Amino acid sequence: MAVTLSATLAANEDIERRRRAGERVLNLAFGEAGLPVHPALRGKLVAASDRNGYGPVAGTAELRAAAAGYWTRRGLETDPGLVVCGPGSKSLLYGLLLAIGGDVVLPMPSWVSYAAQADLIGSSPILVPAPPGEGGVPDPGRVAEAVRDARARGRTVRSVLVTLPDNPTGLLAPRRTIGRLVEVARELDLYIISDEIYRDLLHDPALAYTSPADLAPERTLVTTGLSKSLALGGWRIGVARLPDGADDLRARLLAVASEIWSAPAAPVQEAAAYAFTDPPELADRIARSNRLHGAVARAVRDRFVAIGGSVPAPQGGFYLYPDLGHLGFSGSAEVARTLLDRYGIGVLPGHAFGDDPAAARVRVAVSLLYGETSEQRTAALDSDDPLRLPWIKDSLDHLALGLTELSLSMPDQRPALV
Amino acid sequence: MAVTLSATLAANEDIERRRRAGERVLNLAFGEAGLPVHPALRGKLVAASDRNGYGPVAGTAELRAAAAGYWTRRGLETDPGLVVCGPGSKSLLYGLLLAIGGDVVLPMPSWVSYAAQADLIGSSPILVPAPPGEGGVPDPGRVAEAVRDARARGRTVRSVLVTLPDNPTGLLAPRRTIGRLVEVARELDLYIISDEIYRDLLHDPALAYTSPADLAPERTLVTTGLSKSLALGGWRIGVARLPDGADDLRARLLAVASEIWSAPAAPVQEAAAYAFTDPPELADRIARSNRLHGAVARAVRDRFVAIGGSVPAPQGGFYLYPDLGHLGFSGSAEVARTLLDRYGIGVLPGHAFGDDPAAARVRVAVSLLYGETSEQRTAALDSDDPLRLPWIKDSLDHLALGLTELSLSMPDQRPALV
Repeated sequence: MAVTLSATLAANEDIERRRRAGERVLNLAFGEAGLPVHPALRGKLVAASDRNGYGPVAGTAELRAAAAGYWTRRGLETDPGLVVCGPGSKSLLYGLLLAIGGDVVLPMPSWVSYAAQADLIGSSPILVPAPPGEGGVPDPGRVAEAVRDARARGRTVRSVLVTLPDNPTGLLAPRRTIGRLVEVARELDLYIISDEIYRDLLHDPALAYTSPADLAPERTLVTTGLSKSLALGGWRIGVARLPDGADDLRARLLAVASEIWSAPAAPVQEAAAYAFTDPPELADRIARSNRLHGAVARAVRDRFVAIGGSVPAPQGGFYLYPDLGHLGFSGSAEVARTLLDRYGIGVLPGHAFGDDPAAARVRVAVSLLYGETSEQRTAALDSDDPLRLPWIKDSLDHLALGLTELSLSMPDQRPALV
Repeated sequence: MAVTLSATLAANEDIERRRRAGERVLNLAFGEAGLPVHPALRGKLVAASDRNGYGPVAGTAELRAAAAGYWTRRGLETDPGLVVCGPGSKSLLYGLLLAIGGDVVLPMPSWVSYAAQADLIGSSPILVPAPPGEGGVPDPGRVAEAVRDARARGRTVRSVLVTLPDNPTGLLAPRRTIGRLVEVARELDLYIISDEIYRDLLHDPALAYTSPADLAPERTLVTTGLSKSLALGGWRIGVARLPDGADDLRARLLAVASEIWSAPAAPVQEAAAYAFTDPPELADRIARSNRLHGAVARAVRDRFVAIGGSVPAPQGGFYLYPDLGHLGFSGSAEVARTLLDRYGIGVLPGHAFGDDPAAARVRVAVSLLYGETSEQRTAALDSDDPLRLPWIKDSLDHLALGLTELSLSMPDQRPALV
């Protein structure tokens, strides 16, 4: 089993330790939404502070009905009986992997915890890169090949996981790739686990979104939560949508849930039941958040592009995945270490996401640049031009200066390709 | 892996379903504390409703310091660095079993989730009865024998688990048994996992309490939480105390925590940080709760004794473990089913706790008799004679009538041994 703390949480704790010790470090390592709790959600938590019963393992009837409505409004008709909640979608992903069993196919790169969870349950992840220029969905043709190959070697492969939009690349897989993956999953009888925690965080709200559940509801398990869209990471709430008729799988998931975590905190369930009804005030907050995520992500991308980095333009969430291979690094660990130790820029090596260790790719999270205090963060949300807020501008300048010095210091430095 | 919901949670959901359908059912199956949240704890949750960051996996510094103080005041010097929190002590027990690995020795009977958790991680629990007349600690001599035997068969046994005081028996293991278990654990190099969730719920506050950590701090892992003493089951908060120097085990536990649940809800951590300082108002609440648990548990015991049941006098918590073998039942499942279907009395069969299925023992939880509403429950807490409150008296009468009818209906009914 894994004996290290989740790479993202460990990096965050290291950076916060350095900051407390007086170092100036930009925290671009941690995927925390970096925004305050909306007052309406605080109000719901306060109103539910008398709720102390364990409640049903699947979640309260109100929460399950709200989550069902959430999916139904997004084109995926959902009965509350298909919904199971958990303390974060991470716990539900673990529960699903354990309940399904067997090996899982993951995109390469993909979020640090998928492979670690597979390791905890004693299965082996099979890493398959996305089609060129894409992220979050493993190349369907190569998935078919990898699954047949693994099965020929006697392994049991039962599922393939996708992240829509993706962490770490920030990309949203197109419908044609989802369609091809669905065909492969049907042919090879695989569950599709669709992590849609960033679904409501598209920078362009007009961008078309396809969930595998739209095309193959009979074999797709969708998870989401409020950690990213409403910045409730510390409240620990997620929901899963299971296929109709998957009674045995649901029973197994509930068994796992009931023996490990019971259910999310009862007052938090109440607040989440409200949030999943998509009330206008929260929809407005999410829209503002996405404008902010998009603006800062583009600005950060510009800094990496300015030194010649190759960076896919992010479509959702608050991540970028620059490749600094042109500077002559030996791999992602060296990039991350150099940025942190010499320039006070904390990022995560692509290797932590299962990427080739020799590739000089790092994951950059921009959401902790919005401010140190609730006031600063609120100002960032409310601003028409957040890049001009002094604390954000300072961080961007720190980043630009560090990257410029880095590029000048590297032996393979070539003229920037701005 | 287990494919059923935790027996306690499943029984509760079944009983609540029957009640909603209009059946009159006494819920004596579920170990929920059945008391309101103390207003001071609600106040802390409300004040912390702006906390939405993930925070450290081990828990906030304030929570860990408070838990360290909690143990230190109980005679077990504790550094905050030894503390790890989780969403309920259940999650921490799972994390510890996974982090330790190998098989675990459990008391027979013991709480339903230990064996189910062992099953989830792919290990096999070894069930060993307590010494005659005791509960919660497997007979140390028989533990040594069972471990040697299992090892001789090639199994890896790494830990033994105790519950102090015990669920389901309500008994507190005496110091001499703890001492003997510690000797065996040292000789066979076993970790002792000490589930002390009911520690503060002794009916007689003068009763001496010995934790294995008092005698063998180097190999004892203690877990506790606020679900029982402060009725915060639905808030999901627990803490573990690891041995000094067990850095590798701590790292493994944090790895598990970070990949499955991250940390308990941040506002709940703040409230717990307050609770673990043992403030006088909460100490008073706990003392009142224990008087109530003790009074109702004794009254319920009397009803079982009145029909000739053999029932150890409970010492802590809110459970009884009557044996109705004299009535000629074929086993615990028949007792539980008969009580529920014929008399509307919901209890759990001893078999769910790993006990001999042929023994006619059931676990009776008394804490859901205190009332249906917050007002009734508060009145029960405040009453000098809670047994005379109409709703508690009604429930006790329902129980007495059901048990009397049961005993008269059974073929082996003999004169009651009042």
